[in-house]
Amino acid sequence: MSRMTLAAAAAALMASTCAHAAEPIALRDMGSFHVGGRLVEITGKPVKEVTFTPGGVPAKVDPNGTYQVEQMYVQYFLPQNEKGAYPLLLWHGGGLTGVTYETTPDGREGWLTYFLRKGWSVYNSDAVERGRAGWAQYPDIFKGEPVFLTTANPFERFRIGDGPGSYDPDPAKRRLMPGSQFPNEGYENFVKQNVPRWTTTDDAAIAAYIAEIDRVGPCIILFQSQAGSFGFKVAQARPDKVKALIAIEPAGVGDPAKVESLKNIPTLMVYGDYIERDSRWPKIRATGVAFADAIRAAGGSVDIVDLPKAGIKGNSHMIMMDKNNAEVAGLIQTWLEGKGLTKK
Amino acid sequence: MSRMTLAAAAAALMASTCAHAAEPIALRDMGSFHVGGRLVEITGKPVKEVTFTPGGVPAKVDPNGTYQVEQMYVQYFLPQNEKGAYPLLLWHGGGLTGVTYETTPDGREGWLTYFLRKGWSVYNSDAVERGRAGWAQYPDIFKGEPVFLTTANPFERFRIGDGPGSYDPDPAKRRLMPGSQFPNEGYENFVKQNVPRWTTTDDAAIAAYIAEIDRVGPCIILFQSQAGSFGFKVAQARPDKVKALIAIEPAGVGDPAKVESLKNIPTLMVYGDYIERDSRWPKIRATGVAFADAIRAAGGSVDIVDLPKAGIKGNSHMIMMDKNNAEVAGLIQTWLEGKGLTKK
Repeated sequence: MSRMTLAAAAAALMASTCAHAAEPIALRDMGSFHVGGRLVEITGKPVKEVTFTPGGVPAKVDPNGTYQVEQMYVQYFLPQNEKGAYPLLLWHGGGLTGVTYETTPDGREGWLTYFLRKGWSVYNSDAVERGRAGWAQYPDIFKGEPVFLTTANPFERFRIGDGPGSYDPDPAKRRLMPGSQFPNEGYENFVKQNVPRWTTTDDAAIAAYIAEIDRVGPCIILFQSQAGSFGFKVAQARPDKVKALIAIEPAGVGDPAKVESLKNIPTLMVYGDYIERDSRWPKIRATGVAFADAIRAAGGSVDIVDLPKAGIKGNSHMIMMDKNNAEVAGLIQTWLEGKGLTKK
Repeated sequence: MSRMTLAAAAAALMASTCAHAAEPIALRDMGSFHVGGRLVEITGKPVKEVTFTPGGVPAKVDPNGTYQVEQMYVQYFLPQNEKGAYPLLLWHGGGLTGVTYETTPDGREGWLTYFLRKGWSVYNSDAVERGRAGWAQYPDIFKGEPVFLTTANPFERFRIGDGPGSYDPDPAKRRLMPGSQFPNEGYENFVKQNVPRWTTTDDAAIAAYIAEIDRVGPCIILFQSQAGSFGFKVAQARPDKVKALIAIEPAGVGDPAKVESLKNIPTLMVYGDYIERDSRWPKIRATGVAFADAIRAAGGSVDIVDLPKAGIKGNSHMIMMDKNNAEVAGLIQTWLEGKGLTKK
């Protein structure tokens, strides 16, 4: 490429980038709501005096009474020019919240605004026990204890680094997966998104996700990691309302005895890179593929995309945050269009 | 008013309502980030095996290591047609999150979109320990225990109901304050917004709010209840960056020894109704008024609006959720315009 051509190409690229950045997002509405949950009675505890603000006026707080627990938070953005045939629900993975789909840890656009710009009504939630959904006393209401992750843990377990011991506080000293697409310099921002999680609240999460669908109506669900089992199980509970499933590296699947219920729901499964190098991911992926095979055997349609085989290399478990997140979102958008899920 | 005039007025009102509902929100950008926080080392704990997903592949979780704690979550919406001279930061009260300012519990527009439609860049946060900010182990990192509120507690303490015993699960049987503006039928949705809180994390919250201002730059802060002390103290720490303060029923104030630092920051304090009927609010309000007097004595400017005296009656502590929330927002907007804080 000659110097002139290169300069022209660079100018064109800049113009296109600026045009995109300048493109406003026009919303016909935005807002939030909570769904689901239940009331629990607690009795037999002593009354406390709580000074909520240092130096403030103490208030009596009687811990006995009724508590609202296990609700879920949903934030929605409805585009002015709607092009999706159904709303798109984004369900995050374990130890995370809806922040997963917002700005990436290195400050780029996340999938929430990507799909919003494409004309989808987007519903982004914080599952039961996470973020703006709140959480309940344990062991009184939640049965287990919360799990906290060290700074290093997701780096080594989410196929950003090359396994145990690969993390170092200094970004330059980290043993990244070769060709990793994760924005390494933003890793600390990603860690700030991590929140405590329980491993004993799955039933409550599923109940709340069902309540979300019952409120929103017919929809498409995009879900990741822990939400793998939520996405498939909720679709099995509401097969008529779920119009498509997009499973990003699902860590769990639905009920194998009820695959029949998924046969009319077009499904896309997406897996990133380095599966073979990891100690757990080959088995996790195999579970997903076996579930897909069972759906197909029941007459359903599942497309599995292993990104490296499709020429998209270097993706971690956090595909929606990776440097090529827009490329993968484009692949999903194309799949949705191909399934006739955009407005005519 | 004749029947014809009434019909014409109703038609005009409907047209104006529909026009408002149809008016799109045009954003030049939206997204989120985390600010602040620190790293804490935990040692000497046994390694656990955690099965994150029921039936999934167990992972070893070593609780020893470095934890990211005390960061804060900020979500921002930047209007295409910016009319505010500075970004508007919204800081919620105790046991709540940024949801405070979104859709009201009965499904109307909250202050976030109200001010966004008026052309303000709005930054809505979840303070340290709340919502999408996450929280840390106690007593290892956070020193105290979290406080949980019963369903009845905010109703009786936030001047929605008329004091202790006024709550009933049946909305029709509740003893509301006379003429209450709180959307009683939506009270259960409000309770779903409540999250556990600590009373030992104020210093961390202040540090994170300062980090927010250092990132966003010169700004206006609107804060409520618990954030009263945060708003004033942070302004005292960054007096050159804070261009106005709007204190909605502040439950705490700043450092009385440093009121001098607030003298160049125009300040508005807003109090709702029923203050005299409550056991704690007369003292809380008196503390706010005394602080305002001290700022004035130091040469500063504070406007105190007691809503009932301004003819706006029936407001609870949750003014941004009350049925007349848009009327009070209008009062704040007018004050901001009067202080010359909108673009020329």
